[in-house]
Amino acid sequence: MSAAGKFRHAGADAAGFLDGGDTLARLAAVARGELRARDWLEQCIARVDAVDDRVNAFTLRTLDRARREADAIDARRAAGETLPPLAGLPYAVKNLYDIDGEVTVAGSRINREHAPAAADAALVQRLREAGAVLVGALNMDEYAYGFTTENTHDGPVRNPHDPRRIAGGSSGGSGAAVAAGQVPVTLGSDTNGSIRVPASLCGVWGLKPTFGRLSRRGTYPFVHSIDHLGPFADSATLLARVYDALQFVDARDPACHARAVQPVAPVVGQGVQGLRVGVLDGYFDDNATDPARAAVRMAGRALGSQGLVEWPDAGLARVAAFIITASEGGSLHLDDLRRRADDFEPLSVDRFIAGALQPAHWVARAHRFRRVYRERVLALFRRWDVLLAPATPVSALPIGTEWLDVNGATQPARAAMGLLTQPVSFAGCPVVAAPLWPDGTEGLPLGVQVIAAPWREDLALRAARALERAGVAGLRRAAL
Amino acid sequence: MSAAGKFRHAGADAAGFLDGGDTLARLAAVARGELRARDWLEQCIARVDAVDDRVNAFTLRTLDRARREADAIDARRAAGETLPPLAGLPYAVKNLYDIDGEVTVAGSRINREHAPAAADAALVQRLREAGAVLVGALNMDEYAYGFTTENTHDGPVRNPHDPRRIAGGSSGGSGAAVAAGQVPVTLGSDTNGSIRVPASLCGVWGLKPTFGRLSRRGTYPFVHSIDHLGPFADSATLLARVYDALQFVDARDPACHARAVQPVAPVVGQGVQGLRVGVLDGYFDDNATDPARAAVRMAGRALGSQGLVEWPDAGLARVAAFIITASEGGSLHLDDLRRRADDFEPLSVDRFIAGALQPAHWVARAHRFRRVYRERVLALFRRWDVLLAPATPVSALPIGTEWLDVNGATQPARAAMGLLTQPVSFAGCPVVAAPLWPDGTEGLPLGVQVIAAPWREDLALRAARALERAGVAGLRRAAL
Repeated sequence: MSAAGKFRHAGADAAGFLDGGDTLARLAAVARGELRARDWLEQCIARVDAVDDRVNAFTLRTLDRARREADAIDARRAAGETLPPLAGLPYAVKNLYDIDGEVTVAGSRINREHAPAAADAALVQRLREAGAVLVGALNMDEYAYGFTTENTHDGPVRNPHDPRRIAGGSSGGSGAAVAAGQVPVTLGSDTNGSIRVPASLCGVWGLKPTFGRLSRRGTYPFVHSIDHLGPFADSATLLARVYDALQFVDARDPACHARAVQPVAPVVGQGVQGLRVGVLDGYFDDNATDPARAAVRMAGRALGSQGLVEWPDAGLARVAAFIITASEGGSLHLDDLRRRADDFEPLSVDRFIAGALQPAHWVARAHRFRRVYRERVLALFRRWDVLLAPATPVSALPIGTEWLDVNGATQPARAAMGLLTQPVSFAGCPVVAAPLWPDGTEGLPLGVQVIAAPWREDLALRAARALERAGVAGLRRAAL
Repeated sequence: MSAAGKFRHAGADAAGFLDGGDTLARLAAVARGELRARDWLEQCIARVDAVDDRVNAFTLRTLDRARREADAIDARRAAGETLPPLAGLPYAVKNLYDIDGEVTVAGSRINREHAPAAADAALVQRLREAGAVLVGALNMDEYAYGFTTENTHDGPVRNPHDPRRIAGGSSGGSGAAVAAGQVPVTLGSDTNGSIRVPASLCGVWGLKPTFGRLSRRGTYPFVHSIDHLGPFADSATLLARVYDALQFVDARDPACHARAVQPVAPVVGQGVQGLRVGVLDGYFDDNATDPARAAVRMAGRALGSQGLVEWPDAGLARVAAFIITASEGGSLHLDDLRRRADDFEPLSVDRFIAGALQPAHWVARAHRFRRVYRERVLALFRRWDVLLAPATPVSALPIGTEWLDVNGATQPARAAMGLLTQPVSFAGCPVVAAPLWPDGTEGLPLGVQVIAAPWREDLALRAARALERAGVAGLRRAAL
C-alpha cells in the first residue's frame, strides 16, 4: 500500500462522524515527507472527477496550476526545506475570488466577457504562501445574491447528502465540495448567510469572521458594507488553522478594519471551561422548525449553556439588511440591468432592479438603525461569551422549492433560508457554523451558529472545537 | 489698573494683526494666579453684551454656569492647586452641542420642543475638564444645512467685519463670536465646509480634523457619514492647544475612529523646514476668484510651495457629497418633513425633502465613488505633506445674495460657498482654515485651507503656525 493509500479512506466513529483528523494527518504527513502533495492532489482530482457530475460544485478546474503548486511543495520538501503550515492542502474557491489568469465570473453570464484577473485575490495569495494547492473555482448564486445556488447559467449545486436537494447558497459550491470530499477546504463569502447557510445544509464547518477582519481585495463585491469572506473546512481544528493563514492586516484594503492578527489555532483546544454560553430565544426560536431547535439543544447541552438570551431587534435587522443589500447590489449592476436584464439570473434580477429603485431614505434609515443595533448587540456580550442559534430554519429543501412553512407562517423558501443568519451578520459578529445531525431531517445535516462578539473569533472557534471533541458536530460521509 | 485691565485691549502689529498671543498670555496669567478667571469671564460677558445685538452670534448665554465654572477655577488656584491647561478660557459652542440642562436646538424651531440635554456633549466635557468656561451656545444654519447662517428662526449671524454681510455657515455663530472678540475659542461642526467657510469669511482660525478623529457623542447629527467636529480660535497656537484638549479615543462613540491621541502642541512651532508644500490647481483655481487666488499665493510663498498639484475628481466628489448629505439629512428629518414642513428653515426645506426622495442607487454609487476617491486623494500625500487651496471662492457676500459669478459661471450663491471645501472633507483630510486678508476684498478676510493627509493634523497645524509667525495670517480687529 502506497503512502498516499494510507490516507485514502477516512474512517467514521460510532456517532457516524468522519474522522476530521484525516486531513490534519495528511498535512502532518506532507510536512514529514511521508505523503507527496502531488499524490494528495491527484486523489482530490480523482474524487472531483468521480462525483462532480452529480454535485456540480466546480465551474473551473485549475489543474495545471494545482500540479505545479503541488510539485513545487514536493520539490521544497525534497530539498530539505521546512514547509509552510498548509503545505499540500488542496482547496478551491467560490468563483468570485480572482485567480491569476482566469476570468472571475461571480456566478454570472455577463462577467464571462471580462478580462482574466491579473493577480490572485489577497486570500488566495495567503493560502498559496501557506503552501495550499488551488484545485479550482466553485459554483455560486449569481453575484452572490441567493441562499440556494440554483444557478441558472451553471445549473444548481446539488447537495452531496441528497442530490435532489439544494446545497444552500450563495457559496453552495464551497459547502458541497467539502461535503462531497472533493477538497478538505474551500473559501466562500457571506453577506447575509452565504457561508453559514451552505455549511448548515451540507454539514460542513464554516466561518464567517468579524466584519472587516479578512481582506476582500481581489474578490468580486456584492454589498460593500456587509460583505465578509471566510473558509469552509472538514474539521473545526482545520477551520482555525486555515483562518489563521488567511489573517493579515491589509493596508491596501480600506475595508479591512483588523488592527492586528489574532491567531486562534493556539487556543482552539482550550475547551469551554469558563465560557458563558447562552442560547438565543425569541426570534431565533420562532423562526426555527423542530429539527433546528433540536440541533441547538444538542449544542447547548454539550457546551453547558447557562440560559436563554433575547437578541435585540432581530426582525428589524433582517429588514435593514435586505434594504442595504438590495440597494448596493442593485446599484452595482444598474448599468447592466438597464441594458441587458435578460442576461441576469432570472431568480434574482427583479430584486436587483427593485433594490436600486428604493428611496434613499430607506437606505439612510437602515444604516442609522444598524449603528444603534450594533451597540445593542454588543451589549449582550458583556454577559455572554458565546451565543447559539440554528443556522437555517430547516435542513436542505428539494431544488425548486418555492414556499416553506415555518411554524404556520408561509415564507418564500429561498429568502427564508437566511432568516436566522441575516440578523447576526448585520451586527458584524463572527460566527462558526457547526455541522449537526438532529433527528427529524431524514439524515440530513442542520448547522448551529456559534456566535461571539466582534473580533472574538477565538471564542467561537473554541466552542466549535469543543462541539467537535464532544462528538456532537462533525462531517458525515455523503452517500454519493 | 487691575490685573484684568492689563489684558483688556489686545494690541495690533504692523501688518494689522491682533496680538494672537493675548489669549495665551491670559491663560498663563490665570495659571500663575495673576488674572482671575472670573474677571476674564466678565470681560467676555461685557463684550457679548456690547456687540451681540449687531452680530447675533449667541442664541443662549449660560452665565450662571460660566460664573460657577470661573469661580471654581479661581478657588482651585487660591487653594494652591495646579490648574488644568485651559483654565479660565472662555468659550462657546454651536447650538448643536448638548449642554447639560439646556435644549439642543440645532438651529431649528422644531427641536425647541425637545427635552433638555441630560449631560454635556463629550467635547464640552473635555473642555470643562481642561478648565475652560462655557459662556453660551451659538447661532447656526438649521440642522447645519447651509453655508451662510441666514437662520430664519434666529435671524442671520452678521459678519463682525461688515454687519451687512454673511458670517458664513453653518457654524456662523462660532466664526463670528471669535472674530467679534466675544470669546477666544468656539466649537463648531463641519460636514461640507461648515467650520472652514465661516472661518474664511470671519477671518479666524478653524480646524476640521480628520474624519473620525473627535468624538461626536452628545451632538445633534446632520450627515453621519461625513460629520466632523472641531474648534475655532484666535491664534494657530491656541487652536492646537484646544484641539489637544479635545482629543481622546472615545470607546463609546463607534464613529470615533481615532486609535490614539496624537498631541500637536509640542510640534506646532517646528516650522515648515522639510515639509513638501503644494498648491492645488485645476478645479481649485477654476472655482476661485482673484482675491482667493491671491490669498493662496501669499500662503504658498510664505510656506515655500514647491509646485502645483492636481487634486483628483474634485467636481465629482462635490456631487457625491451633495447626494450623501441630502439623503442622510433628509432621511433624518423625514417624519417632521412629512408632518410639519412649514416649521423648517425655508432656505433648506426643499433640499431636505428632495434628498430623501433620491433613488437608493445614487447614494450607493456616491459611497462607492467615495472609497475609490479616498484612495486617489491619499496617494497625493506620498509626494506632498501639505496642500493649499482657498477656503471660499470669494469673501463674505451681502446677506440675501442669491447668485454669484465665479469666472463667468453663475452659481447659486449659498451653495457656492462650499465649492472648495466639500471635495476636501469628502476625503476625510484634516484642514486648518487660516485667516488671510488679500487685496481686492474691501478689507474683508478670505481663508486658505491648509490640508494634510488623514491623521496628520500635526502637519497642517505646523504649516498654519508658520503662516502666523510669518505675519501672513491672523485675526484683525472687527470694526464693531
